Amino acid sequence: MKKIYVVGLGPGGFEQMSKRAMDAINKSDVIMGYTYYIDLIKDKIKDKEVFVSPMTKEVFRCGKALEYALSGKTVSMVSSGDSGVYGMASVIYEVCGNYPEVEIEVIPGITACLSGASVLGAPISHDFAVISLSDLLTPWDKIEKRLDLAAEGDFVICIYNPSSKKRADYLKKACQIVLKHKNADTVCGYVKNIGRNGQEYHIVTLNELQRVKTDMFTTVIIGNSQTKVINGKMVTPRGYVYI
Amino acid sequence: MKKIYVVGLGPGGFEQMSKRAMDAINKSDVIMGYTYYIDLIKDKIKDKEVFVSPMTKEVFRCGKALEYALSGKTVSMVSSGDSGVYGMASVIYEVCGNYPEVEIEVIPGITACLSGASVLGAPISHDFAVISLSDLLTPWDKIEKRLDLAAEGDFVICIYNPSSKKRADYLKKACQIVLKHKNADTVCGYVKNIGRNGQEYHIVTLNELQRVKTDMFTTVIIGNSQTKVINGKMVTPRGYVYI
Repeated sequence: MKKIYVVGLGPGGFEQMSKRAMDAINKSDVIMGYTYYIDLIKDKIKDKEVFVSPMTKEVFRCGKALEYALSGKTVSMVSSGDSGVYGMASVIYEVCGNYPEVEIEVIPGITACLSGASVLGAPISHDFAVISLSDLLTPWDKIEKRLDLAAEGDFVICIYNPSSKKRADYLKKACQIVLKHKNADTVCGYVKNIGRNGQEYHIVTLNELQRVKTDMFTTVIIGNSQTKVINGKMVTPRGYVYI
Repeated sequence: MKKIYVVGLGPGGFEQMSKRAMDAINKSDVIMGYTYYIDLIKDKIKDKEVFVSPMTKEVFRCGKALEYALSGKTVSMVSSGDSGVYGMASVIYEVCGNYPEVEIEVIPGITACLSGASVLGAPISHDFAVISLSDLLTPWDKIEKRLDLAAEGDFVICIYNPSSKKRADYLKKACQIVLKHKNADTVCGYVKNIGRNGQEYHIVTLNELQRVKTDMFTTVIIGNSQTKVINGKMVTPRGYVYI
């Protein structure tokens, strides 16, 4: 059997993985992923072949996974969160497009908008939009348009990749677009290093969010018009009438 | 300590829960939830007090959880998926608003848009919006507006609660709104009974999706303009330029 598992490890360490994810890793001959993810599970994969690769070079890495699979080795490609959300799953499908004999199984994990939400309280209990501010693979005007429409629709907005060294002011720019439709005192939250050492969370207004310093390990959630603070947590009511 | 865990069990059975979720259940004196969810974990909670409650009556149930917590019993309120997404987490925060001494910990789980996506392939690898078609707690015109704006923004759209007996034509109505902005041949998918007996998935066009019969156990994903079918799976490319 020629098989590639694309495995989401969830946030942080072993305790937030599913048994299904661990089972896939146990059934694999080769484990692939960034150093950081491999480190999270290194105690569990001592008897495995490990292929560590640097950030970027996703297509190269998926080609390598395909090579292993074609040679008869079962591969697990691991990442944090869920590999179906801005992750490797779609790249694997594209790279293996001409090899239908390779079976691909995506094993979902807890993505940052869920784990981040749980740290902040219950901010995504109503309709929400997930938007990445990374313009590496997406034109910025498309990102701007989505921010604008999501804000107009009063969606809760979860922002991935809010900034990086090269894009220090992207979160501020995003807030300014959202402010066209949402009040300046809209409840917002952000979480750094979810489920890891150094986890911290903050609840601020949309106005204050403009000046917040974030990095690639920060997840930001902008509330909807109903979102409120209850005992220090960010809570979006599930409905409009029930309480 | 007065403590309530709000625990997402993920889709299906035990193997898709996190260790953290199981640990919370083990630390609890009382387990609360719908019959269906309690059944999923019944082998693990033989020594626990169990409070089973019917669908609806969420506020009553959360009040009961608060009572247990105030009496010194640690409670786990369990649900499938992630209890922060259209789930009990926000209701618990609201009901416990006047009792800051009750500690609430939300333990995230794999919600249906992630588990459904993994069954279909990799459809949410780019920006996406999550919208429930249930108008029990949300006015229908608000739902329509969100569908319209999400479609205009070329978001992948994940639809929860696509229909019920009383709302047999809601998915069709939703498709008609989305068709104002997206092509009739946009790739769509739906999954029934994710992670459970009877799981099935289908990939159709947006035009065909209008006539699909769904129920409350179906999750629907409408692709963006880039979404395609690769070897029978639904795949949204992560970016616009990399391959």
